[in-house]
Amino acid sequence: MTENAERTRRRGGGRNARRAARIEHREPMLPWLQRNVPAVEVINAEGVERLHEASMEILERVGIDFRDATALQHWREAGAEIDGQRVRIPRQLIEQRLQTVPGRIRLHARDPEKSVELGRDATIFVPMTGAPFIRDLEDKRRWGKLEDLSNFHKLAHLEPGLHSSAHVICEPMDVPVGYRHLWITYSSMFHSDKTFMGMSTTGRRAEDVMEMVKLLFGADYVDQHPVVTGNINGNSPLVWDESMLGALRAFSRHNQPVLCSPFVLGGANTPAHTLASVAQLNAEAVAALAYTQIVRPGAPAIYGHYLSTVSMQSGAPMAGTPEISHMNFLVGQMARYYDVPWRTSGSLGGAKTFDAQAGYESAATLEATVLSGANYIWHAAGWNEAGMHVSTAKFVVDAEQCAMAHKLGRGPEWEGFDEAIATIDEVGPGGHFLGTEYTQKNFQRAFFIPKLFDNNNYGQWSAEGAKEITQRALDYANKQLREYEQPALDPGVDEALRDFIARREREIDPNEV
Amino acid sequence: MTENAERTRRRGGGRNARRAARIEHREPMLPWLQRNVPAVEVINAEGVERLHEASMEILERVGIDFRDATALQHWREAGAEIDGQRVRIPRQLIEQRLQTVPGRIRLHARDPEKSVELGRDATIFVPMTGAPFIRDLEDKRRWGKLEDLSNFHKLAHLEPGLHSSAHVICEPMDVPVGYRHLWITYSSMFHSDKTFMGMSTTGRRAEDVMEMVKLLFGADYVDQHPVVTGNINGNSPLVWDESMLGALRAFSRHNQPVLCSPFVLGGANTPAHTLASVAQLNAEAVAALAYTQIVRPGAPAIYGHYLSTVSMQSGAPMAGTPEISHMNFLVGQMARYYDVPWRTSGSLGGAKTFDAQAGYESAATLEATVLSGANYIWHAAGWNEAGMHVSTAKFVVDAEQCAMAHKLGRGPEWEGFDEAIATIDEVGPGGHFLGTEYTQKNFQRAFFIPKLFDNNNYGQWSAEGAKEITQRALDYANKQLREYEQPALDPGVDEALRDFIARREREIDPNEV
Repeated sequence: MTENAERTRRRGGGRNARRAARIEHREPMLPWLQRNVPAVEVINAEGVERLHEASMEILERVGIDFRDATALQHWREAGAEIDGQRVRIPRQLIEQRLQTVPGRIRLHARDPEKSVELGRDATIFVPMTGAPFIRDLEDKRRWGKLEDLSNFHKLAHLEPGLHSSAHVICEPMDVPVGYRHLWITYSSMFHSDKTFMGMSTTGRRAEDVMEMVKLLFGADYVDQHPVVTGNINGNSPLVWDESMLGALRAFSRHNQPVLCSPFVLGGANTPAHTLASVAQLNAEAVAALAYTQIVRPGAPAIYGHYLSTVSMQSGAPMAGTPEISHMNFLVGQMARYYDVPWRTSGSLGGAKTFDAQAGYESAATLEATVLSGANYIWHAAGWNEAGMHVSTAKFVVDAEQCAMAHKLGRGPEWEGFDEAIATIDEVGPGGHFLGTEYTQKNFQRAFFIPKLFDNNNYGQWSAEGAKEITQRALDYANKQLREYEQPALDPGVDEALRDFIARREREIDPNEV
Repeated sequence: MTENAERTRRRGGGRNARRAARIEHREPMLPWLQRNVPAVEVINAEGVERLHEASMEILERVGIDFRDATALQHWREAGAEIDGQRVRIPRQLIEQRLQTVPGRIRLHARDPEKSVELGRDATIFVPMTGAPFIRDLEDKRRWGKLEDLSNFHKLAHLEPGLHSSAHVICEPMDVPVGYRHLWITYSSMFHSDKTFMGMSTTGRRAEDVMEMVKLLFGADYVDQHPVVTGNINGNSPLVWDESMLGALRAFSRHNQPVLCSPFVLGGANTPAHTLASVAQLNAEAVAALAYTQIVRPGAPAIYGHYLSTVSMQSGAPMAGTPEISHMNFLVGQMARYYDVPWRTSGSLGGAKTFDAQAGYESAATLEATVLSGANYIWHAAGWNEAGMHVSTAKFVVDAEQCAMAHKLGRGPEWEGFDEAIATIDEVGPGGHFLGTEYTQKNFQRAFFIPKLFDNNNYGQWSAEGAKEITQRALDYANKQLREYEQPALDPGVDEALRDFIARREREIDPNEV
């Protein structure tokens, strides 16, 4: 920061001076959340053992499919029982392999001041990904494009409550499928100097991401420092497929953290029972986590999941339901039992617009995930319509909610307590505190004032145009994008990245799925 | 219930049969929440002692105003130091008096099956009260009327997640101020057989409520059974006024639970410090709780508070902020330290419409209050615009949120675990669970399906009219009111209540404020 400011100063000129003023005025990214509030635990230690036992028995008795020849070979060599694609894993093997998963990860950003930690009491907030549609800067629902994705990366870069620009926040439908992972990764890297995610739809694409991060950070650096996270989804119940396992290997071999995420639609691909669903999810997650350690012992890995319950009538995924909160609390307990970092989803919702339903669903989920002690809160901004669209308005509101959740997780502070108590003597019964020196000095820090919530009275609100939150959020998002400045990127690195993309575009069939 | 059904059957006739069918189809009121999830604790036992010490020192050193001659006399006799209206209370006196506050209360409803308990691990959900404006069945914002209030009492009666019809959900502006407490109380009693609240704006009005509950339940019964709750608000910092103390005495003398609620606007009438705000709030609450025990030792009483933080710019109260959640967690810790039941506010919000802001604010607050272990979750349905209006749409959505919060607080259940795990063997890797017998039998109970959230896909939702939650909720509220049936009330009791109201209307100046 100091160096950048110095560089700006030396360059001089009105434009740079204005830019510097804007940047100085900006709120900096919040550090990762170092949680002080204890995690909610909804079962006791005996219950955790019972879930662990149930998961181990599932892996020993039923087994789990690894639908990938390389993985089957790896498991055979490691001592598991192989029957076709079915792998039956002795609990000792799981337990032993889990021991080398690091409990805490430092994830390095292009700007070292934006590096973050996750695991144990450390938590980061990461935008949603994977939406084919967007609600745009005018709240119109339409297919996403690369320009839209860039805008989301810019917004993610600017929001203090987000620790990552993620990757495919919306699908860039104007880019051929075969090239998308290249341009998505480039956009994440170019528009933000925060941490980001790497595409993992196939092993080969994950390898391309590895090449790109090596160009950005240097190959030796990457081998020793986590710089990019990838996610692999399990096909619940009890299946890990070839493309996901290929991506897992690409990340783990390069010492990059992979999120091992069973994709749970509670009741549809798990039993209609909360605790039994978690036992199954846990079996799936730890099997993949153990596999990362077969690929590279000591490689960082993250206990993941995507969690929803489904409506029996429609089969549609729901959000904000009590069982989803229970499952988050439970998965947190299991991850802490194994001392591995874990990932959840923060702001899920099934609403079709940014209406009150979206607000209820997101807030209920986000609060539960923070109080569950989740370390990697993905899908924490923009998610709506069960992930079918990313909403621009919701994205910036959710980002502010993340900043609020950050403060929630920090817990109340004793610092200044005696001084604050002294003001009660000063003010006395029937007085008021707004005029005291203590209040003037501490108010801003003491109480979070959400800028996207309107707390004026009805008359003021009406006089200011009677804007609902969607409109206020879009006004804000537009202003943010107007004021956005691209963080400096070494021109040589940028050229190398573009050269790499050009080469791979020549090699890849654009219509490859 | 069985008796009612039998009575209906014997009466015969098509109308009664249809009514019986409707009633049987209705979801019954949920029992009070018997919480199984541990309450969130954000400070340790030492911290609780430190807050207690700070509160006791405030009461001993600064003192607290009881602006009421009778109360001052009572405190003098009890051994406090009186200086004008200032009461300095030795900690021994507070600690001794708190010991006779019952830790748990059974609150009796007109229908004994709807009686509830609160305190320790028992929690009830109660609608909002006090709104001068409403958003009506067409979402129009206007003054409330008695007919509107009746409609809210009917909706409260019908919603499974609400345990009370409360009292003045909206102000009946068409009733003269002097008569309002009579008609509000009558409407609560007449339109619902759940528990309800009693008006406490002055001591004399609270006495009228006592007369009415004696007519409904019998004087001897009332003296031995809590049947109605009243609330008194403190004027923070450190003032209890005459009208509130008069109401407190009316309730406590009659053995009825009174909520002793400091009215906290964090930063304005408390220090700009979360923990110091709670220390002050705690001093105010325990002083009033101790006073209930001077009025009648052993009378039920509830540690209350209204909690907001204020925006420094506008002075407006905020909702859904992290510090409000912290304060709820902290107040819960203090109330458990004293082993007294405690009240909070569940679904606060400052939005002017039922937009996403309202959803975020309400869900964030409600979840924190349930996880804080609050026993009496007031303002749990309908609150918007900082309490200036009750929204009909929000009322029914919030009520369903209360049912969801109820399930959240129950925690996950082990019952059926082994049977559910067995279906994993049955289904195996790559299968699905929807067709299993276990799923068919248990799905409905296993996962909450909110009826006011839409989880259909975009196409289905569009085909069904693209209705946002406000419209769906209003459709539902209209349907509920069409199908509402007044619960049977003894005609003799009804006549006695109406006679009492008529007599008091002759005695009271209608313009009395």
